[in-house]
Amino acid sequence: MSGVTLYVCTTCSRSNPRYGDSPRAGKILHERLSEEQLPEGVALVGVECLSACSRSCSVALTAPGRWTYVYGDLDPDIHVAAILDGAARYSATDDGLVPWRERPEIFRKQSVARIPPQES
Amino acid sequence: MSGVTLYVCTTCSRSNPRYGDSPRAGKILHERLSEEQLPEGVALVGVECLSACSRSCSVALTAPGRWTYVYGDLDPDIHVAAILDGAARYSATDDGLVPWRERPEIFRKQSVARIPPQES
Repeated sequence: MSGVTLYVCTTCSRSNPRYGDSPRAGKILHERLSEEQLPEGVALVGVECLSACSRSCSVALTAPGRWTYVYGDLDPDIHVAAILDGAARYSATDDGLVPWRERPEIFRKQSVARIPPQES
Repeated sequence: MSGVTLYVCTTCSRSNPRYGDSPRAGKILHERLSEEQLPEGVALVGVECLSACSRSCSVALTAPGRWTYVYGDLDPDIHVAAILDGAARYSATDDGLVPWRERPEIFRKQSVARIPPQES
């Protein structure tokens, strides 16, 4: 499967003294993800604000014909591998619906929202 | 403009003794919206779970080529008119980006997430 976009909010702050205000935690998360090998068919795109500010850091996974998912409360120091694992599982689906037990814990417990597939 | 979908989570609960558990607040919100005149170009669709459970009741606005928005903390008794007003303003845009001052208050203050336009 292909055509998956992993959006990362680059303006997310996070209440974490490790990061302070500059650079922002979301930017750090984006940078760390960009240094990794992305799953096949997944493109990484930084976005200025996913409007999930109260759940910072946040990411979204979307692809034509699939459910879109938004996740939050992510930590650049902890969650990079799990985000990539979840993105790989999402990319392997036809509809974006990864079976519950196969989702990484952050995708089970830190969902912000999901949106049905867009009708084309 | 056309092709806008207003999704309403029909399984949302809401901590409100007026509704109790049956029918759920999300189902009531969907019913009340369906009784109204929808803005031109807007289709109303009920969805079982938008995964924004902690921000119940929730809705999403989406259309091909436009930003998708998810809103939460909505009350079927209070917010039907504002949701329809916001949907009309969204429907009138090319990209889904309604100028900040023109958004109803619930769209300014109760955003759950937004996702960039899907590349076709």
